[in-house]
This record gives sequence, C-alpha cells and structure tokens, in this order.
Amino acid sequence: MNYAPINLKEKLSKFDKYWSPRVIAEMNDYQFKLAKVKGEFVWHDHPDTDEVFIVIDGTLDIEFRDGKVTLESGEMFVIPKGVEHKPAAQNECKIMLVEPKGVVNTGEVESELTAENDVWV
Amino acid sequence: MNYAPINLKEKLSKFDKYWSPRVIAEMNDYQFKLAKVKGEFVWHDHPDTDEVFIVIDGTLDIEFRDGKVTLESGEMFVIPKGVEHKPAAQNECKIMLVEPKGVVNTGEVESELTAENDVWV
Repeated sequence: MNYAPINLKEKLSKFDKYWSPRVIAEMNDYQFKLAKVKGEFVWHDHPDTDEVFIVIDGTLDIEFRDGKVTLESGEMFVIPKGVEHKPAAQNECKIMLVEPKGVVNTGEVESELTAENDVWV
Repeated sequence: MNYAPINLKEKLSKFDKYWSPRVIAEMNDYQFKLAKVKGEFVWHDHPDTDEVFIVIDGTLDIEFRDGKVTLESGEMFVIPKGVEHKPAAQNECKIMLVEPKGVVNTGEVESELTAENDVWV
C-alpha cells in the first residue's frame, strides 16, 4: 500500500486549466477532484446525484434559479441532485469537488466547458 | 432550499469532545463529519467501506500494521476498506471525515472511544 499523503496545494500546483477537474482520490465509487475556476460556468444539473463543493482558496458564487450562495475558503455546500446551478468566480478560486465517479462537470449540458472526465493529477 | 454555506471553523467551534465526530453535511448516502482528536485512538477497520481523512488543522498520524502516514493541514488520505488503522495526534488536531452514513468511528471494535453515531453540529 502507498502511505503517501495527498497534499491539496501540491496537486493544485500541477495544472492551470480552468473548469477542468482533476481527480486526486477515490473512496468506494466516489471521487475527490480539484479544480481551478474563474469566470462564469454554465447552468446545469446532475439528475442522479448530489454534488459537494469545498472552497480551498478564494471565493466561489453558486447561483440557483431562486437564490445564490457565496462560499469562502474553508466553506462547503451540497448541491442536491437535480437542482440547476451555475458556479462563478470573479477571481481565480481553487475548489474540491466530491461526487460519484463518472459525473461530468456540465451534467447533461454539452458546452465548450465540458471537461474530459476521470483525469487524474 | 437553504443557501447558507457550511463553515468548517464555525462548526468546529461548537464542540470540544475528542474522537467524537459531528456530522455537518450529507451527500447522497454519505456524510461529512468534523472531529477534534488528541492522543491515541484504537486499532479498528471498516470492513465494508473506504474512509477519507482530511486534516483541517494540526498533524494526524495514522498507523497501519505495516506502515504509517503523517498528514498535515491540507492533506488527505483514503483508508481502504478492511485495512486496520489507528489514528493518533500528539497535539489537538482538527479533521474532516467522509464515509457512508452509519459508519461507527471504531468499526466493529467496542471501546470507550466508540462515539454515538449520526450526531449533527
């Protein structure tokens, strides 16, 4: 077994592309992913699963059709399955996502922001 | 829907008992729990599930029968299911755990450190 810790900052230093989540760990059939985000994402939902956002560094806005949440470093939020949301960040923000393996970043929406899935860093 | 962020530090300020995880969020049938730990825990395993440790503040050692990992703030580790482990912290350490709902902190081991399950903060 590999007893090396997974260091979030070290993993974040290894890629720059925005809105392009990189897998850093698997727990059962779930994945922990890191992403750097800046600007506005697209409206989408994940019909089959909740999705967790944890802000590592920066400020993340998540818009909903009927509200909004702003997450600072050290804050998290669970998007319930099927709830449309649009993440956005005025400045670069570093986040961790937790969701089942196989979840695509834009849900069922096809976009130029749709990222390749299951890319590890 | 409640659009309030979940602030880890604020949640951690609301309890003091060591080795007594408090649930702060649910994602599908998984829970995110915060814990303060200090001293040595008991050897145990979780035969049916992986378990994620994320260190928020401090230093956590996790011993295995054939090795050890030391996690600092901003580092995480996935304990594979069925692998015996013993967490320990020389000084107070604040951690987040991610695991399926219903997992008991000492696995199938009965101990004075066995905590009540599903306690929210």
